[in-house]
Amino acid sequence: MQHIAVVGAGIIGLLTALELRRRGHRVEIRSIGVAEQATHAAAGMLAPTSEVQFGQHSLGPLMRKAASHHRALAAELGLRTEKPLGYRDTPTLVVGRDRSDLEALRLLAQEQCAAGAEVEELTSAQLRGRAPTLARHVAGAMLVPRDHQVDPRTLVAAVLDALTGPGRPGDGPPVPLTTGSRVASTDEIDADRIVLTAGLGTSAIDGPHRVLDLSLRPVHGDILRLHVPDSALLPGEDNLLDHTVRALVRGRPLYLVPRDGGLVLGATSREDAMTGASAGGVLTLLQDAAEILPAIRDTELREVTARARPGTPDDLPLLGPVPGHPDVIVSTGYHRHGILLSAWAAARTADLLEADPGAPPPAEMAGELAAVDPARFTTTSPLQEAS
Amino acid sequence: MQHIAVVGAGIIGLLTALELRRRGHRVEIRSIGVAEQATHAAAGMLAPTSEVQFGQHSLGPLMRKAASHHRALAAELGLRTEKPLGYRDTPTLVVGRDRSDLEALRLLAQEQCAAGAEVEELTSAQLRGRAPTLARHVAGAMLVPRDHQVDPRTLVAAVLDALTGPGRPGDGPPVPLTTGSRVASTDEIDADRIVLTAGLGTSAIDGPHRVLDLSLRPVHGDILRLHVPDSALLPGEDNLLDHTVRALVRGRPLYLVPRDGGLVLGATSREDAMTGASAGGVLTLLQDAAEILPAIRDTELREVTARARPGTPDDLPLLGPVPGHPDVIVSTGYHRHGILLSAWAAARTADLLEADPGAPPPAEMAGELAAVDPARFTTTSPLQEAS
Repeated sequence: MQHIAVVGAGIIGLLTALELRRRGHRVEIRSIGVAEQATHAAAGMLAPTSEVQFGQHSLGPLMRKAASHHRALAAELGLRTEKPLGYRDTPTLVVGRDRSDLEALRLLAQEQCAAGAEVEELTSAQLRGRAPTLARHVAGAMLVPRDHQVDPRTLVAAVLDALTGPGRPGDGPPVPLTTGSRVASTDEIDADRIVLTAGLGTSAIDGPHRVLDLSLRPVHGDILRLHVPDSALLPGEDNLLDHTVRALVRGRPLYLVPRDGGLVLGATSREDAMTGASAGGVLTLLQDAAEILPAIRDTELREVTARARPGTPDDLPLLGPVPGHPDVIVSTGYHRHGILLSAWAAARTADLLEADPGAPPPAEMAGELAAVDPARFTTTSPLQEAS
Repeated sequence: MQHIAVVGAGIIGLLTALELRRRGHRVEIRSIGVAEQATHAAAGMLAPTSEVQFGQHSLGPLMRKAASHHRALAAELGLRTEKPLGYRDTPTLVVGRDRSDLEALRLLAQEQCAAGAEVEELTSAQLRGRAPTLARHVAGAMLVPRDHQVDPRTLVAAVLDALTGPGRPGDGPPVPLTTGSRVASTDEIDADRIVLTAGLGTSAIDGPHRVLDLSLRPVHGDILRLHVPDSALLPGEDNLLDHTVRALVRGRPLYLVPRDGGLVLGATSREDAMTGASAGGVLTLLQDAAEILPAIRDTELREVTARARPGTPDDLPLLGPVPGHPDVIVSTGYHRHGILLSAWAAARTADLLEADPGAPPPAEMAGELAAVDPARFTTTSPLQEAS
């Protein structure tokens, strides 16, 4: 049993702590807040196929693996809490607004299928059968049956319960959460190992990882939560959509995730400095969504949320030990994919912490870890080389 | 000195209480909350000219008189509080998006000028000089120099301070506010006179006014509060607009009120059952506003508020004593004009309470009160006639 401190309590930190506890370690969490940043905003699509874009050759396999980790997580989590887990096997439709959008989706589907994904183009009748509320003018759609969803807020509540509950035989002790103040330096922490899962805040913490150029940048996103009133539904319906709908509307992507009698509509990706919700972003989301799903005008706007995702130059996360400091693991940079990648990240972090320092890691793990090496953007300066 | 209970603490109740205190009466306020309903949402235009539409022949004179009451109120209020009053003499531009919108505005301006208002059509150069951020494609604009604004939230804070402060010589005692529970019946109230200013809630209170058919209905409105970041401004600017802009965008009205480095964008008028914010309403507001002021896309969406206004069949308020019960005054139904009409309503209510029951009211007051008679929608039933 190691004593491991996890710094940061977004979905990455929480699931990492849970996995470490599950493996019998003594874990504590230190964080300013709990799931208040990107996790609070996230829609929670578990969509390894439809979230991957052209050229993301390293991200695709990670995401597919991550989706299977989520299934394993759900099983373990269900043993440790009575709370709902938030998982739903909602299939995903990927809709093209016009012919050009659809053509782009077809090309992408070819690449996705070549990588082993299940993607099927629907006829207009099939689409109408699956999503009768979609605008008749959409050019076409793909079905991705295995791109599912989890409600991040429900998942967080379940994980917190599992972290602080009695646990299962073999688990480490209940995990204490110390919140309300920011960890300024790893020096404050008295533990065998430290995992830094503070998202964008990771760079602001003082510690051995500061020798690394993490190249984190905020990618702001706006996301809306809509409630569907009964007046917008036919008898027997409980939502406007049964499927998650991802759409390309004249080149702009959006998604609509059905959840709890409502829809989660997202998300912009803004590289500007606005931390609050962008009026232009909200306008574009609603405008594009209304083109795909006209009845969205009849919904109630319950929440407008803006948060920053921790972006990296190559859209891949940063996961691994700090060179020369195997006791400090960096785990951040999950960008738009934090929820999907979280269960995988938790397992890999635990693997790293349990690895024999003398032995080389298994080949598969080594390949994955090479792609997400937190030192990959760090160029050693001539001065450092000389010293 | 009379002991008067005011039921309801929106802007109408608060200013009524202040006016009664100013006239030396002992006043108390009973309300579930303070300025949480329509007053919380209201933009606060004091726009007796540009708020009047075709055919509102009775409303126009009331609104012009009400604007002058606000000037008097500001003077009295300034004697009783150190807090900011929220008044600004921002002039108003009334903008037509296309030729047809502009033509409608010209016809309305003729009617407004005939009623004595000051309205002036601007050349495109004049418009550019006054509002350089407006889209070049707007068809034209009118200037209404004397349509001003007050920030309702600032005004409420000032009025609360004046109500509970020491007051001036001759004022009644400080006004106690009892909040947190709804007044179910006028029977609960021990006072000489009762003024019912509970907005839409007035009909739900039991009391002698229940013999009246007030015909109140909720007219839901969505309103947005936007912050203008420095990045959207040129050096030296502190907002995107110096003028209040009212616009007709292909027949749909909107307004943009500059305030505190931001803009208040409103407002929908929905006769539906949705008490929360309408996604369609928010979309339409942002879409239409972006046509008039493209830079609105660069603002931050800080607040989305939806509240119901107390509407009446003829858009005129309900102000007057309950027939046969001169001790109970109804004052509600101010619809979209609650802030503007509030100071006038407060003065008239005080006049009514101080009137000699035997003497006829002055002719001007009699004319005003006839138009807003709270019994005007009440048809006496045959049964009542027989009894």
